Amino acid sequence: MHSELPSKLLNTAVDEFAKLPGIGRKTALRLALHLLKQPREEVERFGNAFIALRNDVKYCTVCHTISDADRCPICNNQRRDHTTVCVVETVRDVLSIENTQQYNGVYHVMGGIISPMDGVGPHDLTIDRLVERVAEGVVKEVILALSTTMEGETTCFYLYKKLRHFPLAITTIARGVGFGDELEYTDELTLGRSIKNRQPFTV
Amino acid sequence: MHSELPSKLLNTAVDEFAKLPGIGRKTALRLALHLLKQPREEVERFGNAFIALRNDVKYCTVCHTISDADRCPICNNQRRDHTTVCVVETVRDVLSIENTQQYNGVYHVMGGIISPMDGVGPHDLTIDRLVERVAEGVVKEVILALSTTMEGETTCFYLYKKLRHFPLAITTIARGVGFGDELEYTDELTLGRSIKNRQPFTV
Repeated sequence: MHSELPSKLLNTAVDEFAKLPGIGRKTALRLALHLLKQPREEVERFGNAFIALRNDVKYCTVCHTISDADRCPICNNQRRDHTTVCVVETVRDVLSIENTQQYNGVYHVMGGIISPMDGVGPHDLTIDRLVERVAEGVVKEVILALSTTMEGETTCFYLYKKLRHFPLAITTIARGVGFGDELEYTDELTLGRSIKNRQPFTV
Repeated sequence: MHSELPSKLLNTAVDEFAKLPGIGRKTALRLALHLLKQPREEVERFGNAFIALRNDVKYCTVCHTISDADRCPICNNQRRDHTTVCVVETVRDVLSIENTQQYNGVYHVMGGIISPMDGVGPHDLTIDRLVERVAEGVVKEVILALSTTMEGETTCFYLYKKLRHFPLAITTIARGVGFGDELEYTDELTLGRSIKNRQPFTV
């Protein structure tokens, strides 16, 4: 889009939308014109939602997930198993695991992954807080649920070294061929591992 | 996404993003978490851009395009041909035509198209204002640049009836096979018309 927009206000709004990841200028224009057609109160609610989120959001002091209070609803829930901690990279991973409805423990959000290429070291993450949390003695199992990338494996190994002296089980989520995947199209590493770690057939 | 988000502020922000056309809840969450990582001032600029757009935007009193002043830059430009008016549905069409850099006349933005199914009649559009504009006597040609849908054709016909008594040329943009299209995949109506309206070959 090389031509100038006829309005600076519109141009600013389009620029702001286009800064979002995955939103190009064509989509940004479509979204800005959509907002123009909405009632004023709606647009004020829209704009203020993000300002409020950014200014007022807190992070759970226990697990570091996004929260409105000092403790998130999961850490506050006494019906959850507080002896099992699932270590994840981001809040999105918490939501993904919650959506499976297969996990009743608590979480620890690291805030990223060790990645020297991106300048992220262990001290940029909440790893020290995880070690403190484990040292309190309540936790019996730590599940490492990180990406299966090189950085993920490195971070798993780092966490393992930090935690192995505590009397607790350190596990990782199962790797293998996904449901609905065809063997033919599964990469060799995944397929090789899933054969090596084969499990008893259950009905 | 059926699980509850751990923060109401986040939930509200996600809801607001998800109200935008073409943005699902997964993308909305990704965008909200992206904003969370930006500096406060950035997020305030983001939210306020849309509120300012909605509250302060004006429409050009001549051609009805979005404008910061009473007259848009195109209508104010004395180097443009004010005797030729291109009638379009929306501001986006103005921008699309401007991007071609092939047009030096002015515009008239109707604000939509006659569509009884959507409850849009001639009086919901800026048609009367177009007739007044033509009646002033400066305009020598009106180009109808509307969609080639049933509603577009209906609207063209309605405009033609309103304008045919004035001493001016009424034209439509050329219909035909687009550049880069293959004949095999062109619909019969378009192909038929483009054969009927064949043009002298020029080099």
